[in-house]
Amino acid sequence: MSDARPTVRIHYCTQCRWLARAAWIAQELLTTFPTQIDVLLAPGTGGVFEVSMSGELLFSRKDAGRFPEPKELKQAIRDRIDPDRDLGHSDR
Amino acid sequence: MSDARPTVRIHYCTQCRWLARAAWIAQELLTTFPTQIDVLLAPGTGGVFEVSMSGELLFSRKDAGRFPEPKELKQAIRDRIDPDRDLGHSDR
Repeated sequence: MSDARPTVRIHYCTQCRWLARAAWIAQELLTTFPTQIDVLLAPGTGGVFEVSMSGELLFSRKDAGRFPEPKELKQAIRDRIDPDRDLGHSDR
Repeated sequence: MSDARPTVRIHYCTQCRWLARAAWIAQELLTTFPTQIDVLLAPGTGGVFEVSMSGELLFSRKDAGRFPEPKELKQAIRDRIDPDRDLGHSDR
């Protein structure tokens, strides 16, 4: 893991077969933040779908009762690592 | 990162636009080893495409002069975390 860069961890349920969704979200985040973050895909069980960065929980499916949209995750990451950045029309 | 599980790190070149390939490899590995590893997608530059596990280099594009096939990565991981496992007809 690159020391300087924060790691976004996507913890997803394998029983629910959410790898594809987790990998999609990972690619969305790494496309928007191509050099500023690492992304960790971490399998889990029991319906988990959680996104955290440097240990801080950004999104929990159990709490929200739904899956995260890339836009809200990108905004949460932007707010923490590059607050002045404009994410552009689709992710503003 | 889950302490118990080893992390497979895929370090890929963003200049070469190898995110899609890295994410594909990640999904292949996490499909074959659904609960035994975490996979870290780590952007880099300069033509890098390297796969390592727990700090040990398993594959380097520069050394091999080509990209890795999922099969050889799965075998390398299997040899280290589950030596007796038969990967089945396609990845044996």
